Amino acid sequence: MSPLQFSDVEAAAGRIAGIAHRTPVLTSRTANARLDASLFFKCENFQRTGAFKFRGACNALARFTDAQRRAGVLTYSSGNHAQAIALAASLSGIKAAIIMPHDAPALKVAATRGYGAEVIVYDRYTENREEIGRRLAAERGMTLIPPYDHRDVICGQGTAALELFADTGPLDVLLVCLGGGGLLAGSALSARALSPHCRVIGVEPAAGNDGQQSLAQGAVVTIAVPDTIADGAMVTHLGAHNFDVIRRDVDAIVTVSDAELVETMKFFAERMKMIVEPTGCLAAAAALHGAVPVAGLRVGILVSGGNVDLGRFASLVTQ
Amino acid sequence: MSPLQFSDVEAAAGRIAGIAHRTPVLTSRTANARLDASLFFKCENFQRTGAFKFRGACNALARFTDAQRRAGVLTYSSGNHAQAIALAASLSGIKAAIIMPHDAPALKVAATRGYGAEVIVYDRYTENREEIGRRLAAERGMTLIPPYDHRDVICGQGTAALELFADTGPLDVLLVCLGGGGLLAGSALSARALSPHCRVIGVEPAAGNDGQQSLAQGAVVTIAVPDTIADGAMVTHLGAHNFDVIRRDVDAIVTVSDAELVETMKFFAERMKMIVEPTGCLAAAAALHGAVPVAGLRVGILVSGGNVDLGRFASLVTQ
Repeated sequence: MSPLQFSDVEAAAGRIAGIAHRTPVLTSRTANARLDASLFFKCENFQRTGAFKFRGACNALARFTDAQRRAGVLTYSSGNHAQAIALAASLSGIKAAIIMPHDAPALKVAATRGYGAEVIVYDRYTENREEIGRRLAAERGMTLIPPYDHRDVICGQGTAALELFADTGPLDVLLVCLGGGGLLAGSALSARALSPHCRVIGVEPAAGNDGQQSLAQGAVVTIAVPDTIADGAMVTHLGAHNFDVIRRDVDAIVTVSDAELVETMKFFAERMKMIVEPTGCLAAAAALHGAVPVAGLRVGILVSGGNVDLGRFASLVTQ
Repeated sequence: MSPLQFSDVEAAAGRIAGIAHRTPVLTSRTANARLDASLFFKCENFQRTGAFKFRGACNALARFTDAQRRAGVLTYSSGNHAQAIALAASLSGIKAAIIMPHDAPALKVAATRGYGAEVIVYDRYTENREEIGRRLAAERGMTLIPPYDHRDVICGQGTAALELFADTGPLDVLLVCLGGGGLLAGSALSARALSPHCRVIGVEPAAGNDGQQSLAQGAVVTIAVPDTIADGAMVTHLGAHNFDVIRRDVDAIVTVSDAELVETMKFFAERMKMIVEPTGCLAAAAALHGAVPVAGLRVGILVSGGNVDLGRFASLVTQ
């Protein structure tokens, strides 16, 4: 298979145009003044289904053959990819089955069912979702679209950074949250083509720095399920397709603490009037709390999603 | 004085360009599906200082003479106009003094002081802020820019709807929150010019429908301070300049309950990932809860601001 390149992201952008939202890029003079930088927030919390994942899901389903469409789509996801596949499938008249962990946020499970998908629950700590996925795919003939380790998913996610650079022009740094690596790999493809001198930096929770370890060792490192409030980044290892791109096109991976994520949620709520889920705060936290020096620089920040139970949000921002 | 007209709003747009944000217009397929309508939310909660008031303040200060600039600006406000004048003055190097009610939200008082303004506290229930304003203006030689009853303020506020129509084209209905009438009057000026057949409808809290009474009677009606969670609409009467425009260019005024405002805050938080203050929910509540029928229509909704204490927000959306 040929290495993924920016033209694959451009093709994805064409496929999802008019289906996915073109989300706004917001700025905060408060943050800029505090950091002496120019920050550009790409707000995927305003994307359909509340997260960037809708881009990759749309792109993957748009490439289904007629036979695949008839048999349906299957996936596993801690939440946002589940909703993304569920809605994208529903819009295309494709049947969807979603394997979700027993402790996924209630809001995400309800939204997934609300889009008409079948939800199959598994235990995140004792069962292997990839195995369950492969078994069900074989039994039912459905096509498995995993949440990040898939070329069409990666290229769909890359359209967010494509739009960001189209709005801002070249940047000095691009900060992207990192779980399995779909958004980071896709963003890197766009950055390399549209802003060749931009440093692309992944940000993961300190509790689970498998990405950082993988980049250092030059091979995918697997860890235990990390204990973090960033539920979208509770993955044990990068995807293989993702790592191929990340190793080639990403400059560094840094970590932030859960406490910094909470502070960043408060910043978004108080100063930018936005609800951002903990995982969606990863990239901004790296800039606001110093993991990545940004003084004097033009910095892109991927705000990946806003799906957090309101009760949980309320308790986090008032603690 | 000549009646206010759209060319005054256009002139204001020129003065505030590059100082005020051009805020995004967001959509919600969930709301559209539920109401069988096309809603366009103009998100002034993302405006500088967190509310549309910055537009009017900028426009008014931009017209100061050198002598006025040297003497400074004075105002009274329950909150958002205070921050707006404070920041606009600070950006122009003008001294500002703000008369604020003793029960104004702490976040708004702190933000006003944070922009470098002097804050003078008064009792909303026993003292008259207009009187205090006139006395201080006379004593200090400062120019009083009241929160809504001022031609330059009205025209500045009208630039939000000007931008909305530029983005959406003609609409069938425009819903605008109503307190003193600055945003409603300014929006009506833009609507009449840019979308002549659009119905312009003001929305005020059921607890204080002085605007509705005024439109019915053809004269400004004064009521007691209304008891509502919409703190930005706790005004006792429309401004005179505002009523001149509203009487001429506004088609109707409707009311919504505090319970509907809370439901609308939850809708914005859960489905659109935005923090909107109670007053900012007025216009959307009228569409979401049936005060204005919108089925089959293209509807503009002014989301006026997002300044609400996080603790209060958390308690309202989890009740």
